[in-house]
Amino acid sequence: MAPSASRRLDRLVQALQRLPGVGARSASRMAYHLLQHDRDGALQLAQALQAAAEGIRHCALCHTFSEEEVCPTCADPSRDTGLLCVVETPADQAALERTGAYRGRYFVLMGRLSPLDGIGPDHIGVRPLLERLQAQPPVREVILATNFTAEGEATAHVVGELARALGLKATRLARGVPVGSELEYVDLGTIAHALADRR
Amino acid sequence: MAPSASRRLDRLVQALQRLPGVGARSASRMAYHLLQHDRDGALQLAQALQAAAEGIRHCALCHTFSEEEVCPTCADPSRDTGLLCVVETPADQAALERTGAYRGRYFVLMGRLSPLDGIGPDHIGVRPLLERLQAQPPVREVILATNFTAEGEATAHVVGELARALGLKATRLARGVPVGSELEYVDLGTIAHALADRR
Repeated sequence: MAPSASRRLDRLVQALQRLPGVGARSASRMAYHLLQHDRDGALQLAQALQAAAEGIRHCALCHTFSEEEVCPTCADPSRDTGLLCVVETPADQAALERTGAYRGRYFVLMGRLSPLDGIGPDHIGVRPLLERLQAQPPVREVILATNFTAEGEATAHVVGELARALGLKATRLARGVPVGSELEYVDLGTIAHALADRR
Repeated sequence: MAPSASRRLDRLVQALQRLPGVGARSASRMAYHLLQHDRDGALQLAQALQAAAEGIRHCALCHTFSEEEVCPTCADPSRDTGLLCVVETPADQAALERTGAYRGRYFVLMGRLSPLDGIGPDHIGVRPLLERLQAQPPVREVILATNFTAEGEATAHVVGELARALGLKATRLARGVPVGSELEYVDLGTIAHALADRR
């Protein structure tokens, strides 16, 4: 966009660059598209951003995004309060929920340990997790469902140690061959784990 | 994001998908980033979107985005009103301005002809361009500066015919070898044009 042809346009292009993965070129393209073809979309997005930024907080129990003090999953009385599944993000929680195979509660860390990026236990929800583990009704098993990446494994290790220090059982999602995959195309580390954990 | 954990969150993820090039996954990632790490950015973006959608219109003369009836470039009395450079987008206009080599006026089509996508002369600014070409002060030369793509060439052809039908001189930006490039690596079509247009 021509700089200073319009200050509002410059400010919009600047503000769009606050979105992750959006640089100067895509921000210009987005601003241009919205102004030329979709002003309704621009206004809807403005309202949605404001409503979300002002109305979404963290669930007091599981720490996920919620409009209420306690999110619908934590407020569901039919769920097993003794099982606590620890995940990195709401998207991970959604993936587990879609399986329909889990009826316990969750704790969403909202991040993962990443010492190389300066992200330590205090930057993710370890302190509220500690409070959660010691709260009533008691948790009898912590299921570590962080991702199977280097950071996710490190996070699982730290959270598992915390849980065990409190005398709680801590389990990790099983590693193994994905359903539907052919051994020929599965990486060696996964096959090694599947062998070691055979049942 | 977990569907229905928060309606505001779902609406935000939906609204972000109105941005070009943003699908469900990036929209989730953007919403998550803004809510977790940059609520100020979300509010700033909301304000910038609203200010732009409500306050930006098209310049009455050159058709580019403008907050005023007439944009600063068209209002500049030092520019040659007899030269009219026709470009596809404000970004193209900005590229020409950065050269410092042009002191005439512009007309921004805000698009290009693309019959395959159903974009004909009426969808881009051909009608306001016709009015512009016949307005006072008179234009003596139309410089066709659309892109050197198939659509841009087609657009240049149509606009050039219009200008010539009105008895105006129409010229096209020169095609040739880019400054700083080695012939070995320049595509054949460009070299052929550079040969034909040698001076």
